[in-house]
Amino acid sequence: MRLKNIRIVLVSPAYGGNVGGVCRAMANMGLSDLALAEPRELDMGEARMMACHAAPMLARMQRFSTLGEAVADCSMVIGTTARTGLYRQHARTPREWAPQAIAAAQSNRVALVFGTEQDGLSNADVAHCTQMISIPSHADYESLNLSQAVLICAYELYLASGEVTPRAEKSPEAPAALRERMLAMWETALLKIGFMTDEKAEHMMLGLGRIFGRGSLTVDDVRILMGIARQTDWAVDAARSLAEGAPAPVAPAEVES
Amino acid sequence: MRLKNIRIVLVSPAYGGNVGGVCRAMANMGLSDLALAEPRELDMGEARMMACHAAPMLARMQRFSTLGEAVADCSMVIGTTARTGLYRQHARTPREWAPQAIAAAQSNRVALVFGTEQDGLSNADVAHCTQMISIPSHADYESLNLSQAVLICAYELYLASGEVTPRAEKSPEAPAALRERMLAMWETALLKIGFMTDEKAEHMMLGLGRIFGRGSLTVDDVRILMGIARQTDWAVDAARSLAEGAPAPVAPAEVES
Repeated sequence: MRLKNIRIVLVSPAYGGNVGGVCRAMANMGLSDLALAEPRELDMGEARMMACHAAPMLARMQRFSTLGEAVADCSMVIGTTARTGLYRQHARTPREWAPQAIAAAQSNRVALVFGTEQDGLSNADVAHCTQMISIPSHADYESLNLSQAVLICAYELYLASGEVTPRAEKSPEAPAALRERMLAMWETALLKIGFMTDEKAEHMMLGLGRIFGRGSLTVDDVRILMGIARQTDWAVDAARSLAEGAPAPVAPAEVES
Repeated sequence: MRLKNIRIVLVSPAYGGNVGGVCRAMANMGLSDLALAEPRELDMGEARMMACHAAPMLARMQRFSTLGEAVADCSMVIGTTARTGLYRQHARTPREWAPQAIAAAQSNRVALVFGTEQDGLSNADVAHCTQMISIPSHADYESLNLSQAVLICAYELYLASGEVTPRAEKSPEAPAALRERMLAMWETALLKIGFMTDEKAEHMMLGLGRIFGRGSLTVDDVRILMGIARQTDWAVDAARSLAEGAPAPVAPAEVES
């Protein structure tokens, strides 16, 4: 569990709400090791409110009087900066850096350090860091909220960790044969309802093939489209039988598998 | 300016602080078109506080009584969901989807729709969407705060937009010839201070080459290392001259270019 080896260190955060937001962002991305360095007094009620279901992380949060102590057992110490300037200009982006951090976290502890809301990391803080990263942001407003900055870094680590599990079994893409069977059923139905004549059918079916082919179609999608054609076909037959006083045809079976 | 064509639509957000956080996240990532659908009463003081320097966006925010009206002029309408289930299982990730959205935004308006904090998008809301996306998150706590969800999507759009400008001119990577000149200067200095003997020099210099070669070294880095070797060399000569009562050697010039 490489994500377990990643510690988020907040240096002197001022707002409990931000610390709570950091807890939630960390939990969303599978991180759990949170530490404060040079802690100030915090509004813990606000922290719990913003942490929401991640509030238990606040109770486990470690407090260190200095940044040096907070990162003492970490082999890689990453500072985050929004500023440029000496010692900061070589900062990489979280996306460039995440795979290396995950590799290091396989067998060592990695710290990711965030400065105060007001001023970020001081030069003395930066001296504790082995590397710097900087989140890409627009020149009109470069500085992210603290919990937002943590989220972006945690998100990149989570994606790089290989621990992302797909949300749900997806319906597979429909193979060409199934798509063509579906189009043939539509052709039959569209002829029967008089939407097109035999002469126009080929041209029109090319157009429909283009419409249905523009995006991807899953097997489930194609089954829905087949069901529509089959039901249309049946409804016209049923109406004709009714008009002729003949018994209605059998309704189509449920969507074919 | 493709980012200008991307509208963030919030359906009935409950908390002003979240709407403010959305403004800041949008401004951080170069987005500016914010709309509310089915707006509720909001605490605008809290919104302004969380928006911070992006508060002017709150004044320009549009309000539509229905989601249909909010997305009426958009050719691509992307819904966001944390839930799985019917109609949601085909959701892609923001990273998969962003390049396509940026391409569409070149000549059309694109809407990105977020549901309420409590329940997300309803099935009626989803019916307005042409596609769904879902932010990867850890199974222990899947649901992101509203402004955090907006940030991740905006961040992926910003990175995909090609409008990201590098923060600062970086010092270029040092070429091999410069690295080797630096190592030769270190060898001279280390011999002079008696750190190693002539016989051990080759072995030790291989070790030093490995240490300095493990990470990348820029031209600026190599100049610092050259300066150290040159100064060491000089300091030893100066001390010897002093001991011999001879005049001190000339101090080395500033770091060589």
